[in-house]
Amino acid sequence: MYERGISSAVIKRLPRYYRYLGELLEKDVIRISSKELSVKMNVTASQIRQDLNNFGGFGQQGYGYNVEYLYTEIGRILGLDRQNHVIIIGAGNLGQALANYADFERRGFVVCAIFDVNPEVIGKDIRGIVVRSMEDLQSFIAENKVDIAAITVPRQNAAKVAADLVQYGIKAIWNFAPTDLHLPPEVVSENVHLAESLMRLSYKLKNASEDLSEAERGDGD
Amino acid sequence: MYERGISSAVIKRLPRYYRYLGELLEKDVIRISSKELSVKMNVTASQIRQDLNNFGGFGQQGYGYNVEYLYTEIGRILGLDRQNHVIIIGAGNLGQALANYADFERRGFVVCAIFDVNPEVIGKDIRGIVVRSMEDLQSFIAENKVDIAAITVPRQNAAKVAADLVQYGIKAIWNFAPTDLHLPPEVVSENVHLAESLMRLSYKLKNASEDLSEAERGDGD
Repeated sequence: MYERGISSAVIKRLPRYYRYLGELLEKDVIRISSKELSVKMNVTASQIRQDLNNFGGFGQQGYGYNVEYLYTEIGRILGLDRQNHVIIIGAGNLGQALANYADFERRGFVVCAIFDVNPEVIGKDIRGIVVRSMEDLQSFIAENKVDIAAITVPRQNAAKVAADLVQYGIKAIWNFAPTDLHLPPEVVSENVHLAESLMRLSYKLKNASEDLSEAERGDGD
Repeated sequence: MYERGISSAVIKRLPRYYRYLGELLEKDVIRISSKELSVKMNVTASQIRQDLNNFGGFGQQGYGYNVEYLYTEIGRILGLDRQNHVIIIGAGNLGQALANYADFERRGFVVCAIFDVNPEVIGKDIRGIVVRSMEDLQSFIAENKVDIAAITVPRQNAAKVAADLVQYGIKAIWNFAPTDLHLPPEVVSENVHLAESLMRLSYKLKNASEDLSEAERGDGD
């Protein structure tokens, strides 16, 4: 209950803490100070203490953090202590890539079905998951526990697919289509806009190389 | 030159402006007011005016923005007015998905080569791009213009691949491996951490459903 009202900035950082703590666990590290963790993660120790205090704080003065305990607690806060059943809409390259990510399964995300409209891919077997026809989407959701739907269809079809998913009762959408979906407030979502990430990289590259060529010409800033 | 010293929050929003303006252009919209654009994008009109003022502001009092001009200018600022040559390291599902994204090419990102260590995929043809051996990486970079390298290899190999790329002269890395790369300051990067996005979605879903079940039980907040 104590994790209510936490800023989205903190939530944004939690998966990163979880990832780092998982790496420490793999290396059999039992405990870590906020200072060590801060060096590893390249944030300030006070930021780490502040972030983790949001969840009641799991550190002990003079001892630091118990890695396994913190890892488990953050996992619980993120909802990784239960299985999330995922369906993927769109069996193109990206949809198939997501279906093939065994890493997700370790975190409790189980891909249970993939859907597509293309007869050429319907029936195809991806890691034991058969691509189904979009015509079966409604009945599949009605008959199975589905927590999350990933949308990897082309932009022009995304809004319709999202509306259908919401109508069929889906409450969480992981959107890869390069468009912003308009969803009712009770439906949560995360967007992965690959093209936008690539454009930001292009911006950084352009400005870094302009800075560089100015420095080379000697006219500085 | 006026686009120096712009906050990263503004930079983060630019690709989204670019996307919306592109959609307007497709619909043959010639001009738009900051108010209309703000409704469409679900941000305040003053935010839009403030953001665009960073670049000298392209709006005219009483007229609004010329869509094509603004689209072209933001594209130029993002560096989309020139071709960026991209190589992909890792020809797994994700690497192949990126290579197949024709959408990137429209924005000037041309995938010119894909590399892998797996003999089973080396030689495979993806949309006319042949998968090459990692052994050819250094000579390829030496002999061709390469602006951006995407890393889609497993986590445990990512640091080594990044170090090699930097050594061979790459200045921009698009990282999909679920790890933070340690790069020299002159190398820019963007991370796409899919698992972290999925965990944030899981968090939102968990908290939304807890809120809901509390409301159903009638014990509110």
